[in-house]
Amino acid sequence: MHTLAQLAQMINAVLIGDPNAVVRRAQSFEQAEAGDITLADGARYHARINESRATAIIVASPIDHATPNLLIARNPKLAFARAIQALHQAAYQARGVSADLVVGEGTALGEDLSIHARVTIGTHCRIGHRVTLHPGVVIGDECHIGDDTVIYANVAIYSRTEIGSRVIIHAGAVIGADGFGFVPDEEGRQVKLLQLGRVRIEDDCEIGANCAIDRGGFEDTVLRRGVKLDNLIQVGHNCELGEDTVVAAQTGFSGGTKVGRGCVIAGQVGTQQHITIGDGATILGQAGVTKSVRPGAIMGGTMPAQEYNAWRRRHALYSRLPELADRVKQLEKIIHDAGLTISESPGSDE
Amino acid sequence: MHTLAQLAQMINAVLIGDPNAVVRRAQSFEQAEAGDITLADGARYHARINESRATAIIVASPIDHATPNLLIARNPKLAFARAIQALHQAAYQARGVSADLVVGEGTALGEDLSIHARVTIGTHCRIGHRVTLHPGVVIGDECHIGDDTVIYANVAIYSRTEIGSRVIIHAGAVIGADGFGFVPDEEGRQVKLLQLGRVRIEDDCEIGANCAIDRGGFEDTVLRRGVKLDNLIQVGHNCELGEDTVVAAQTGFSGGTKVGRGCVIAGQVGTQQHITIGDGATILGQAGVTKSVRPGAIMGGTMPAQEYNAWRRRHALYSRLPELADRVKQLEKIIHDAGLTISESPGSDE
Amino acid sequence: MHTLAQLAQMINAVLIGDPNAVVRRAQSFEQAEAGDITLADGARYHARINESRATAIIVASPIDHATPNLLIARNPKLAFARAIQALHQAAYQARGVSADLVVGEGTALGEDLSIHARVTIGTHCRIGHRVTLHPGVVIGDECHIGDDTVIYANVAIYSRTEIGSRVIIHAGAVIGADGFGFVPDEEGRQVKLLQLGRVRIEDDCEIGANCAIDRGGFEDTVLRRGVKLDNLIQVGHNCELGEDTVVAAQTGFSGGTKVGRGCVIAGQVGTQQHITIGDGATILGQAGVTKSVRPGAIMGGTMPAQEYNAWRRRHALYSRLPELADRVKQLEKIIHDAGLTISESPGSDE
Repeated sequence: MHTLAQLAQMINAVLIGDPNAVVRRAQSFEQAEAGDITLADGARYHARINESRATAIIVASPIDHATPNLLIARNPKLAFARAIQALHQAAYQARGVSADLVVGEGTALGEDLSIHARVTIGTHCRIGHRVTLHPGVVIGDECHIGDDTVIYANVAIYSRTEIGSRVIIHAGAVIGADGFGFVPDEEGRQVKLLQLGRVRIEDDCEIGANCAIDRGGFEDTVLRRGVKLDNLIQVGHNCELGEDTVVAAQTGFSGGTKVGRGCVIAGQVGTQQHITIGDGATILGQAGVTKSVRPGAIMGGTMPAQEYNAWRRRHALYSRLPELADRVKQLEKIIHDAGLTISESPGSDE
Repeated sequence: MHTLAQLAQMINAVLIGDPNAVVRRAQSFEQAEAGDITLADGARYHARINESRATAIIVASPIDHATPNLLIARNPKLAFARAIQALHQAAYQARGVSADLVVGEGTALGEDLSIHARVTIGTHCRIGHRVTLHPGVVIGDECHIGDDTVIYANVAIYSRTEIGSRVIIHAGAVIGADGFGFVPDEEGRQVKLLQLGRVRIEDDCEIGANCAIDRGGFEDTVLRRGVKLDNLIQVGHNCELGEDTVVAAQTGFSGGTKVGRGCVIAGQVGTQQHITIGDGATILGQAGVTKSVRPGAIMGGTMPAQEYNAWRRRHALYSRLPELADRVKQLEKIIHDAGLTISESPGSDE
Repeated sequence: MHTLAQLAQMINAVLIGDPNAVVRRAQSFEQAEAGDITLADGARYHARINESRATAIIVASPIDHATPNLLIARNPKLAFARAIQALHQAAYQARGVSADLVVGEGTALGEDLSIHARVTIGTHCRIGHRVTLHPGVVIGDECHIGDDTVIYANVAIYSRTEIGSRVIIHAGAVIGADGFGFVPDEEGRQVKLLQLGRVRIEDDCEIGANCAIDRGGFEDTVLRRGVKLDNLIQVGHNCELGEDTVVAAQTGFSGGTKVGRGCVIAGQVGTQQHITIGDGATILGQAGVTKSVRPGAIMGGTMPAQEYNAWRRRHALYSRLPELADRVKQLEKIIHDAGLTISESPGSDE
């Protein structure tokens, strides 16, 4: 719990109201009660501000005649994210190392660990301080796990993987499986291209449940600082995802895709091999990105992805195809009724 | 094994044939032998009814001169499903609780359990009667698991998850990982929106292998009674899936999607955040649903999904675009040959 | 390490250069150093051949004035795959069977095994020789695992699964979960069609991380010899994938899909139930295959997939829809300006 005076300081907001009022919980606008702080994001919620029983509401600008205490923040959603953390982020408490830890020789364990039952760590690993490993985590040989990283149940990390600090890996994710590379031989049998690279995940990344991030062929697959992946995402060998890029569920990056910093990639997107997506680009859901994308572009459509505005124009016309076809038919009828004909045989000369 | 008289009663069918004939096994039409019961679903199979060596065949209506015994059922496929269960559903037998169970304090275990080796259960859970937990299942703290529920190998269930009775969760599924919510800060770094809600899975649901069902942000993610999910499905935070809705593999529901009762969602479908899909709607494969869908609608196409009939008309015209383009070209030629021109410069005045 | 004379023989190449030169490592063209062998695949790399510090370079044909040693191979990529294996494939070394193995009665274990900690095997299984099982692998009852097969961490294999020799299954894959089959009853509740078939995976297959391969309804789901699956792939009940077929990530095969030999299926493809894809067909990324595909066809587009060349033509016209609409508009203007009208009311008589 915090007083509003404290909280305003923590989230960098200006308080209009009672500095000694106390909030214990963050809640959604609809569910917020006395003792809660919530967010009124946009005019629609501003209009309903006095319906709320929340003790405090974060808003973008002062609202006349507001009953609840207001916290004015330049970026209300960001301020709310920080308020939620201030109220609900539990302080780390080391639970210790389960007596049943299976750990290979030459592995160095940090301090203040939280290693649950049924964790397996290979040889010559280095596990940082305050790392949390949930049951069923399997870490191969020669892996590094940075400080304060949390790895949830049944995550599998193959040998030689590098994971930074403050990384969160959700349950069932697989890090470092072989990239997908085969060459057919003389009889059509697929010969495996051994995958000798690694996966490197830098600090502050978050990896969703049941993701699969493949090791590189020769060089490494790399997730730069602060990449956030939703669930069930495929990252092929030798991909590189830039800092602070966020990716929604079920997207797949083919081998060698390079994604810039601060990109927003929606769900179920697919990328062609070896393309580059520029910094700050946005890719809308289900787009199939077949060519490199310039920085800042917004790409939409399905396969192939197109600049969003061009796609919208085409899609509007596609939607009106029945009308266009009718207009052509009518033109043909007029021409026919007018007795006009072509003076020579029309070749298929396109 | 059952006599046909018994079976007819169990599956609510009318027997035309020998009430004392015995069937031991259900089988596909092609593979059925003496001692088997099978299904002839549709005219194509009716015509081949005397090719079958099955002892009994479930059909929708009597067939003249049929050699096998016939079981006439209003809904033959449903009757067959029940016949398969009658013949092949093994009665539950408790295997007991493995001596190596790791279980936290305050957890209450029901009776007649089947807990395999290498299961981990957190603190303050309540596990119902006759629950089956396969090896590698990890259950967090404060979870409830209802009676007769079966959880297959290596499923991870995060803390505070509620699971009903007679639920089946297939291997590798992850229930209750954090929803995907971030807000960029002043430097573009992604700040996590802590996910404080839960997952609630009601009675009689089935969850496919390697699905990921995220916990809600504040409120819960909910699967209502009887929802059936195929494999590799993503259910984002705060989704609600209605009773008896079935969803095919690799579909993804973005955060806050509300799906009604009795919907049929095909594979690789994606939904926009916060939309509503009405009761009884059908969404065809790979559709990208960007807007709310009215009850009973059939939506198809890719991105954006469209009413199926409208999409079919557009798609037929899309397929004939080469022909349409040729017709426009021919019109241009006729006009040109006729010496017609526009009387003023055509502006791009659309 | 090998001399180039040895290596040329092993990979079936002709050496132009020093037969006694030694290579220790395979590397990408960009990163190759002295002591490395690499590949110059295509004219673009041929032109840069003297930039490389590699000791040896595999090429398709002799290159004048080349400084590095050259290995001329008919299929350079295949030769390189073999060179990588010659240099980097570690010889199998049995690590033995972990003392904590949980194994059911009636199970027969082969020789020279590598069974890591925390593996669980059911009853009446047969595990071949030199099999590697990583931590967290769960094998049900009555399974067969062939010689030299490697199963990575936390793979779940349901009962009665058949797996051949030299198969690789990556972490988190689920083999043999129930196929997805339900029939609504009189009240709309979904009644489960029990899934009585099995999964059979023949020799030399590779299954990617977090794939899900369902057991058949009555007959089996089958992966023929040499099938290679990337990550997060769904194989529905009763599918059959032909020899040497390769499938990229996140593709889903609906129940009963039959895929021929030597097919190349790209990522995020979906198939309709019960269709057949002919031998040697290619399906491009994100295609939704709604009808059977003839052998050797190349299918592209989204939903529905189309012959690639037809799709390209349509897509080019789709991209020029704004232009086509402008042309129709101009025709209408000309017709209007010429005073032409239709002589009778145009019915919507299509």
